[in-house]
Amino acid sequence: MVNIEKPSLIINEEIARRNIERMAGKARKYQMAFRPHFKTHHSADVGNWYRDYGVSTITASSVEMAQYFAQNGWSDITIAFPYNPHQWSEINELAAKTRLGILLESDEALRHAGKHISNKISYYIKIDVGYQRTGIASNDIEKITSLMQPPHSTFDFNGFIIHAGHTYGCRSADAVKSLHNDILEQYRMMKSHLGEDIFISHGDTPTCSVCDDFENIDEIRCGNFVYYDLMQKQIGSCSLEDIAVVVAVPVVATHYERNEILIYGGAVHFSKDSLDANGSKTFGRVVRFSDSGWEITEGLYLKKMSQEHGTIGGPEHEIRKLHFGDVIGVLPVHSCLTADLLSSQFTLDGKAIRKMLR
Amino acid sequence: MVNIEKPSLIINEEIARRNIERMAGKARKYQMAFRPHFKTHHSADVGNWYRDYGVSTITASSVEMAQYFAQNGWSDITIAFPYNPHQWSEINELAAKTRLGILLESDEALRHAGKHISNKISYYIKIDVGYQRTGIASNDIEKITSLMQPPHSTFDFNGFIIHAGHTYGCRSADAVKSLHNDILEQYRMMKSHLGEDIFISHGDTPTCSVCDDFENIDEIRCGNFVYYDLMQKQIGSCSLEDIAVVVAVPVVATHYERNEILIYGGAVHFSKDSLDANGSKTFGRVVRFSDSGWEITEGLYLKKMSQEHGTIGGPEHEIRKLHFGDVIGVLPVHSCLTADLLSSQFTLDGKAIRKMLR
Repeated sequence: MVNIEKPSLIINEEIARRNIERMAGKARKYQMAFRPHFKTHHSADVGNWYRDYGVSTITASSVEMAQYFAQNGWSDITIAFPYNPHQWSEINELAAKTRLGILLESDEALRHAGKHISNKISYYIKIDVGYQRTGIASNDIEKITSLMQPPHSTFDFNGFIIHAGHTYGCRSADAVKSLHNDILEQYRMMKSHLGEDIFISHGDTPTCSVCDDFENIDEIRCGNFVYYDLMQKQIGSCSLEDIAVVVAVPVVATHYERNEILIYGGAVHFSKDSLDANGSKTFGRVVRFSDSGWEITEGLYLKKMSQEHGTIGGPEHEIRKLHFGDVIGVLPVHSCLTADLLSSQFTLDGKAIRKMLR
Repeated sequence: MVNIEKPSLIINEEIARRNIERMAGKARKYQMAFRPHFKTHHSADVGNWYRDYGVSTITASSVEMAQYFAQNGWSDITIAFPYNPHQWSEINELAAKTRLGILLESDEALRHAGKHISNKISYYIKIDVGYQRTGIASNDIEKITSLMQPPHSTFDFNGFIIHAGHTYGCRSADAVKSLHNDILEQYRMMKSHLGEDIFISHGDTPTCSVCDDFENIDEIRCGNFVYYDLMQKQIGSCSLEDIAVVVAVPVVATHYERNEILIYGGAVHFSKDSLDANGSKTFGRVVRFSDSGWEITEGLYLKKMSQEHGTIGGPEHEIRKLHFGDVIGVLPVHSCLTADLLSSQFTLDGKAIRKMLR
């Protein structure tokens, strides 16, 4: 493996490509367009891997991210975040250069965008199917219908965007499927009220990974699946073997007397999403690097973090195998946030990977 | 205020300077050296403000941060993080250009540094006074003594570094003082065993803010005090009026039916430290910008976050005052992590503030 000086994201390209290929194949099988969300990797280099599996349309979560990927050769981008009126000028500029989609959910937003954006642009209406983060409730047909009329001829109404983020509360594939069935019922209802030809773009890695019924779904926009992580494993979206990234960190101190070691790697590298595993809060699971990649250790986990420090705990016989100066890996709880934070990124075979700077 | 397009850190320079002046004055009053930790602001511009209060020595939490501040004119830097053997070459280079201090806590680390670092350098022994993150227990005199002998003549043994991070568990100034008294007792014990002339460098914003007894402390290295935050307010280190930063965020959707609004501002901007306030998890408190700065609202708080989205909740009459396109402020729970994440930073009067890129 490449020489590690500081906390670095190590990407198993083979696993990541397998994850992309599998999801692209699933989209094809069910005749859905595939518009993967690039907010997981934030990387021009990793983005290029998708082209090998036929991807030419992508999703971004901010105007800045759309600008970054536009600069890196992507020309069909949906910004899957509610229209921010303070960025109309940047959005207008992007729309001149790319086939751009934006997301709206209110009359104020539609009016503002209509007034300020002069270049050709598509918009989607954001629908809430139960996550209650944002969007118009799927049964509020009156409000939905009121937004389906574009303000002028350079505006195209494209369809509906849904992110089923409430699947992140599931703890089994069956729970995800049951939630998904409820969502499919809402899509049927939408079609019956809004017309058979409406376009439905569906998000979230759990349902796209787990489900096999995509009735009425025209496009999927999942993103996390490229790397997966411990949270997706807990939800039931993937196995540990599908996780394509670890954070390589140096061991800087040992505290065998309390079964702990200290790593250079903290909240500024991992962010702070955690899981409860067997009653203990965990920020990651420890792996050991091997010739072929990494192997998961038994019981070693990232138990505490401060700004730059991380504390690894676990059983005595495993902790004592770790020494000052060792480089170990940590499977992240939430790969999107972790990949965003780490500017130092490499593939397992040592290729440096560029990412969007923060 | 400056026009806000995206989540941006807004710094009230007057409050930040008052916080610096107060702490610099306290250090002078108790005849302690002042080596503020710059990991809170990560900013060359904010760093320069300290010079007006006589500061010429600083603390960094990583080699990269030390490099950044060395490039920005600082020539006396302590890296208050255990020596990382994988960065010996960068450390050696820095030591050629600056008066550099590093931190060691094991024989392996001392031997490694002694073998690899050829430029003149100082080292401190990291002592644990109860936080149990890292360091040698203050009563392990044998182990401490074994590290006090420099490996060769370009190595200076400088003294002891302590970070009383367990004060972050306190929920009142009295609790901080009580913990501090226990730490002072450990310093007395160390002096009695290790010699009256040892140098003790003491960290953490809570004790430095709250306490008035600094017996045996030769230097303070607190950092968070420049901005403070809701966590420090909860600990008892500051009042709400001492908090010098808010995150300015645009309102992008309203959900009055459930007393919520959606902001552009999520985990990639705030990080995910939270507090429990009246039984609810909170990631920040909402302020309204005014001519003179900002005013704290009653009961509005950041209740949920995903990657780029934040949900503000609160009482109906306050929520209904917020509209699509408004720019509001959020007092962060942990200003160090938030300031690290936001590359867009301004003072209240609109000066752009440079920070270290991630």
